[in-house]
Amino acid sequence: MSDAKRGLRAKYNANLSLLTDLYQVTMAYAGWKSGFAEKGQEKITVFELYYRSNPFGGGFAVSCGLSSILDLIEDFHISQEDCEYLASLTGADQEPLFEKAFLDYLRDMKLTVDVEAIEEGRVVFANQPILRIKGPILQCQLLETPLLNLFNFETLIATKASRVKEAAGKDQVLEFGLRRAQGIDGALLASRAAYVGGADASSNVLAGKIYGIPQRGTHAHSWVMAFDDEQEAFNAFAKAMPNNSVLLVDTYDTLEGVRKAVETAKWLKSQGHSLLGIRLDSGDLAYLSFEARKILDRAGLNDTKIVASNDLDENLIVNLKLQGAKIDIWGVGTKLVTAYDQPALGGVYKLTAVKDGQGPWQYRIKLSEQMIKVTTPGIHQVRRFMMDGLFAGDMIFDIDRPPKGAGTIVDPFDHTRRKSFGPAASFEDLLKPCVRNGKVIAGRDSLDKIRERRLRDVEALHPAVRRFLNPHVYPVGLEPQLYSMKNKMILDRRGLAQEEIA
Amino acid sequence: MSDAKRGLRAKYNANLSLLTDLYQVTMAYAGWKSGFAEKGQEKITVFELYYRSNPFGGGFAVSCGLSSILDLIEDFHISQEDCEYLASLTGADQEPLFEKAFLDYLRDMKLTVDVEAIEEGRVVFANQPILRIKGPILQCQLLETPLLNLFNFETLIATKASRVKEAAGKDQVLEFGLRRAQGIDGALLASRAAYVGGADASSNVLAGKIYGIPQRGTHAHSWVMAFDDEQEAFNAFAKAMPNNSVLLVDTYDTLEGVRKAVETAKWLKSQGHSLLGIRLDSGDLAYLSFEARKILDRAGLNDTKIVASNDLDENLIVNLKLQGAKIDIWGVGTKLVTAYDQPALGGVYKLTAVKDGQGPWQYRIKLSEQMIKVTTPGIHQVRRFMMDGLFAGDMIFDIDRPPKGAGTIVDPFDHTRRKSFGPAASFEDLLKPCVRNGKVIAGRDSLDKIRERRLRDVEALHPAVRRFLNPHVYPVGLEPQLYSMKNKMILDRRGLAQEEIA
Repeated sequence: MSDAKRGLRAKYNANLSLLTDLYQVTMAYAGWKSGFAEKGQEKITVFELYYRSNPFGGGFAVSCGLSSILDLIEDFHISQEDCEYLASLTGADQEPLFEKAFLDYLRDMKLTVDVEAIEEGRVVFANQPILRIKGPILQCQLLETPLLNLFNFETLIATKASRVKEAAGKDQVLEFGLRRAQGIDGALLASRAAYVGGADASSNVLAGKIYGIPQRGTHAHSWVMAFDDEQEAFNAFAKAMPNNSVLLVDTYDTLEGVRKAVETAKWLKSQGHSLLGIRLDSGDLAYLSFEARKILDRAGLNDTKIVASNDLDENLIVNLKLQGAKIDIWGVGTKLVTAYDQPALGGVYKLTAVKDGQGPWQYRIKLSEQMIKVTTPGIHQVRRFMMDGLFAGDMIFDIDRPPKGAGTIVDPFDHTRRKSFGPAASFEDLLKPCVRNGKVIAGRDSLDKIRERRLRDVEALHPAVRRFLNPHVYPVGLEPQLYSMKNKMILDRRGLAQEEIA
Repeated sequence: MSDAKRGLRAKYNANLSLLTDLYQVTMAYAGWKSGFAEKGQEKITVFELYYRSNPFGGGFAVSCGLSSILDLIEDFHISQEDCEYLASLTGADQEPLFEKAFLDYLRDMKLTVDVEAIEEGRVVFANQPILRIKGPILQCQLLETPLLNLFNFETLIATKASRVKEAAGKDQVLEFGLRRAQGIDGALLASRAAYVGGADASSNVLAGKIYGIPQRGTHAHSWVMAFDDEQEAFNAFAKAMPNNSVLLVDTYDTLEGVRKAVETAKWLKSQGHSLLGIRLDSGDLAYLSFEARKILDRAGLNDTKIVASNDLDENLIVNLKLQGAKIDIWGVGTKLVTAYDQPALGGVYKLTAVKDGQGPWQYRIKLSEQMIKVTTPGIHQVRRFMMDGLFAGDMIFDIDRPPKGAGTIVDPFDHTRRKSFGPAASFEDLLKPCVRNGKVIAGRDSLDKIRERRLRDVEALHPAVRRFLNPHVYPVGLEPQLYSMKNKMILDRRGLAQEEIA
């Protein structure tokens, strides 16, 4: 059992199969009444999960959440107890919302979906399918909401962590967010996603136990306040943990605190130990780090690290580094685990094809006055091209119309923008089979492997794409046959003539 | 068992006792080594939980999270398995972080804390204690992080919901946030907190099952796209749920969709039913609601409601109402459940008093260069004064120095601002006993009762305090003896003379 698999199960007792929007159940009911679930004539659909713009104004995201999604699919079953709850729901007429026969159908339903997905830890981009699911429409709809929940949040935090780690460079990043996270799971999933995205350790002990994430932490202000005096508090802590002391110096007066930490360090040295570090948690971190470093260095404590925390994020870290702040280790909490500057990723899950029983696929499109909200019809694969050791562009193509000849992509929002990949480009198809007929067959990897994947992928991005502000837009486009089909379907649906406008 | 109690337990299988920061455990270890846990000589502390500024630029918050906190306290026990995990942790020297005897102590530890708290659903204000805990320092510290997590998030969302409900007035508010919430519990706790704060129903089926929250939802775009044509889709849905249909009209062309919904409504009418509503989920909601209302009214469908959704929050709702938008029911998702414009409440948990064994209380203060970050020493109660049917001000006083004579409060950040409550004022002490010697004795109420409490409290606020933008600052101050004591302790700690500066 992978660590991620232990994750969801180790937390939740509950059957999570009702973790969905009521409209998925009312649609299932209406579908069941409309014959969508008739044996041999089931309505089969393909849905795709993607998001429309890269979070935080960045150039990419780090895919995360697949392990939780696979756990959820594997455990999915609507229990008798769930059915009793659903049977208690009434409509506007105060009559039961659902017939008993339908609830029996739900209770006996076994998932038969197939899923392809991009692996956790890969860099992904706006408007490309990250997960594709095929199966009976009732099943695909019931899964929509939990799949979006898990993907949206975990990807958001892994992406934020990747940015924070980019800012910190070779320095360690510690995730300290539990106290301000959005609920218990908001903390646990965030600790895991932050680790996927590059954080080096977490303060969240339960996340450490469940996921095996390295743990960090020493003491709080309340330790100091429990004593009559700060020096006494530092000495007592150092005596208890002589090889693991990082002293928090800002309970009363920060630089006075540093001087007291030096006294404690001298005592530790006399005992054959050394002070690991001090932590600054308030005030002007740049100024205080300069002054603290001077005090430590003058006392010969050149190896004692300075840890900083206090509402840090990637932008503040960059800024502090530009000022040359003498900070060695970055504790990042609220801003990371809540993705404070953009606390939701707008992932969507759209129907792209439908068929009745053994009939042919009918591709579907959803229109909108905004081109970015028009869906792409078909059943897609994502092909990533690589040139000179860097990712060069991603092509979305219909699996029944594979690319002809050299790879060319068309920008779906501006067809005059196209890019071709020569024969020298290598490529990889990113959507990989994870679930077949409701059974998980792949897609669960160790956190170590996922972390390595993220690092490798980020390093394969051009630095301009990694930039925080106004990054270069990585090319993601449609294969030309797919572009033409989409274009034709839009015009058809709007009742416009398909004329040749090249 | 209350619904809230069922809540935390129905979700988590896990022992949540390690849901804390590692530094709480390392402090516990250092405390244990320093003699803080010696029988008869235990170090006893008082901590208070509060936040420093009202969220969303508003004038108050709605307290929420106590039920979860009480569940967590009641179930708290560090298991053998937890100890095995802790035993596996190593320090910088690669040696085990903790001695076995300490882990045995943790495993055998039973909580003996006392807790007083302000009830869920009450309006609360910045810088007043909302929860006070007394007990052995190790226990109080271990509980700090989970208590903050639960209080911060649930209070944040209940407060946001209260604002959304204030904006919607008598209209219904539906919470639709599951797909974009911060993880599974980010959704479940948010659904409950939103309901506490005034939302009328949720789309989250599992939240409905766990907490008994009313459920709402009908169909998505994918229902329409599963059919060859929109009219056919509407008819099939209405046929399946003739008394419960709200049709989503914007899959292709919104107003065309409304006209098709009218056709379906006519058929429903011919069968003795009626169309409950239509839902607008994109585009210019004001314009579309005017046009949709006209189309519906012309067809005699005056009772068919218009539901609107799409990134709504209190500000957009106010704006749409100012434009006279013909919207009857508001679906609010992402912006509510993630508290998008301020996704974390900065609750803190500060030590205010300490004693050794049976010794006397020693009050404690934490300094800071910012006055707002200086803590208030002592053991406090919050007294809320009421005049002419409205809340008039809150007094924080030390329970060993109750107010003398008429109630007077001093603004802790500007001592020249004072307010007196005459003998006509009635009052209520808000911090109420919930836990005694580790056992929960009160504080779990039904959601209905909590919702009524919120409504009553909000109505007892002056309209100027309820205003969204630049609200009137509700008076919260220190009782004069407490103010003087705090002032003296700050000067003492800074080594300054205590001179009479009146």
